[in-house]
Amino acid sequence: MTAAQATTTAGAAVADTLARCRALVGPALRDRVAGLHAWPAEMAGYAFGWREAGGETRTGSPAAAGTAGASGSSGSSGSSGSSGSSGSSGKGVRQALAVLCAEAAGAPARTAVEGAVAVELVHTFTLLHDDIMDGDETRRQRPAVWKAYGTGPAVLAGDALFALAFQVLAESPGPYGGAAVRRLSGDLTDLVDGQAEDLLFEGRPWTGPGAVPVEAYLRMAEHKTGALLGCAAGLGALLAGAPEATVEALSTAGRQLGVAFQAVDDVLGLWGDPAATGKPVHGDLRRRKKTLPVLAALAADTPASRRLAALLTGCGPLDEAGLRRAAALVEEAGGREAALAEARARLDRARACLLGVPLAPEPTAELLALLPYVVGRVV
Amino acid sequence: MTAAQATTTAGAAVADTLARCRALVGPALRDRVAGLHAWPAEMAGYAFGWREAGGETRTGSPAAAGTAGASGSSGSSGSSGSSGSSGSSGKGVRQALAVLCAEAAGAPARTAVEGAVAVELVHTFTLLHDDIMDGDETRRQRPAVWKAYGTGPAVLAGDALFALAFQVLAESPGPYGGAAVRRLSGDLTDLVDGQAEDLLFEGRPWTGPGAVPVEAYLRMAEHKTGALLGCAAGLGALLAGAPEATVEALSTAGRQLGVAFQAVDDVLGLWGDPAATGKPVHGDLRRRKKTLPVLAALAADTPASRRLAALLTGCGPLDEAGLRRAAALVEEAGGREAALAEARARLDRARACLLGVPLAPEPTAELLALLPYVVGRVV
Repeated sequence: MTAAQATTTAGAAVADTLARCRALVGPALRDRVAGLHAWPAEMAGYAFGWREAGGETRTGSPAAAGTAGASGSSGSSGSSGSSGSSGSSGKGVRQALAVLCAEAAGAPARTAVEGAVAVELVHTFTLLHDDIMDGDETRRQRPAVWKAYGTGPAVLAGDALFALAFQVLAESPGPYGGAAVRRLSGDLTDLVDGQAEDLLFEGRPWTGPGAVPVEAYLRMAEHKTGALLGCAAGLGALLAGAPEATVEALSTAGRQLGVAFQAVDDVLGLWGDPAATGKPVHGDLRRRKKTLPVLAALAADTPASRRLAALLTGCGPLDEAGLRRAAALVEEAGGREAALAEARARLDRARACLLGVPLAPEPTAELLALLPYVVGRVV
Repeated sequence: MTAAQATTTAGAAVADTLARCRALVGPALRDRVAGLHAWPAEMAGYAFGWREAGGETRTGSPAAAGTAGASGSSGSSGSSGSSGSSGSSGKGVRQALAVLCAEAAGAPARTAVEGAVAVELVHTFTLLHDDIMDGDETRRQRPAVWKAYGTGPAVLAGDALFALAFQVLAESPGPYGGAAVRRLSGDLTDLVDGQAEDLLFEGRPWTGPGAVPVEAYLRMAEHKTGALLGCAAGLGALLAGAPEATVEALSTAGRQLGVAFQAVDDVLGLWGDPAATGKPVHGDLRRRKKTLPVLAALAADTPASRRLAALLTGCGPLDEAGLRRAAALVEEAGGREAALAEARARLDRARACLLGVPLAPEPTAELLALLPYVVGRVV
């Protein structure tokens, strides 16, 4: 078998895993969303990719059941066909993490369904509200919910999903509902922290005492992106009745995976194909969003770093040529490689977490296969 | 003692109750808000009336500890000194309901603190998000949070309070945390339903088959306004370990109180003193907001009803004279009296709920005294 064939086979296996978990979780997710008031339910259905704005059900996307936007980016080609920071999440990575972690802890997949539904609801809630906060007008090649339905209604729909997530967990059968709610609420507090930091970073300077240290960026990413992946993994293990050490190990693996994903997403935001990422080229740089490749490049203290700092701190916004030049200097100063190295290191830590506690072999193998898939195989 | 003296004495007793509950709950509330990320914590502090925009602590308002906007409307004069639909809530009615219901169920006041903190957090979350949805630029004579800090940050601060409310309850000591979270999430789902209905009502016609029936309005009010007062009462009883029948009775009493409050708030929106209500005169009517006096007047099928219908459905928005004429026709068609009668009936139902289950006499007397206070003694 060639390396390319091996990759294809591994990709097909991951696609099978995701499809299996979607088939399990999707009906429960749809069922709970259908129980919402009709208006937030319609907006939620649009956000999940189940229907168009105005209420028409989308056709030709049976694989989309229970996943956000999966119909636009199905297949096994990693995150390259997905859009922006929501990336592979559109294929149901969070629900799969919850299900696989329950199975790895020795419980049937069914045990994780309420946890999986809750994290998918929370994930979509964050997309709705984050798009308002960030002023992002499109998501997955369609108008963001706030553009399609208005800001107020989008706030409301997010709130409805948020409340529903807690309701689903609190009503989950079995003895672990209370602990699950504690975990979700704690991780959500971290997630809000991360979003707050990310928004505040935009107003901070590129250089000088107010600049964002790489460590602060990584902490932000662990909260903003890692907390919910960690929550998915932790909830799966918790609902399976796993010992606390196992729950913590799987939660930490999820968080590390989240940082890896964010680092790669930052790289794609600078050098990815906009047609594939769904993001405008250099969009992050244009709005002074602090991303790992740029921060790492600025911290490298090389001649290219200093030229980059001078370019970014010069007067006025950069034009297209200036943005291209900045991206080239980020690469020259080692920012791209530093971000990819960080992603690799985080994936290694995630693997170490999985291998450090006793887990069932087959679902663990599926989990290990899922990790590189989430970051799109670019590292 | 004259009737006026009796009213003053009763008012002072209610003020004592509220102050006692604020003193108990306020420090815990501030403590939990202080644990948030500094930015949402600052916005929350502004929303609670603890500080000005930009972070300066407000001085001269010791009574404000733990209550939203209490400094601007302290005293015992009912809701006449408060602003808009948040009304008496600014003095900590929700936390008092939680504490008194725990005591009425035979538990020490301390038992209710996490429930009281959670409902105050949720209440402030709803104010932040509702002001965005409704486009309300001021609250309690100050810029709304979204006007002071921006829409995105206000969404974020609301989300932070929402998550914190669940965290506080989920971490509450004792055996009832799980049930408390279930109750909060269920009531929140109702609350979101009510907010969705209220927003949708604005787009519906005054007359004809699409008009809003009075019954639909009352269901909306029970969800939008009643659910959180019911949650406060129910959580207090639940955390006290009360039997389910008692929890349900107190929760229902809170919901009925909420409908009474909303009916009176609608009356004040049409005929109240804008300086006292903090709302522009006829503001609800101007934006075609469906309120109980108007819906009841239209449903009365009198000559005045028909003149009102003709006026409201005429072409173009009403000018000041038209709005005054509409308010007069609402009164002539019995809309004002119908709304006040509804409020009285709901207060009676709330009293019946309290008297229908075994409760400790002293806190129950405090609860009974609180009921008319919440609706501002106008009924």
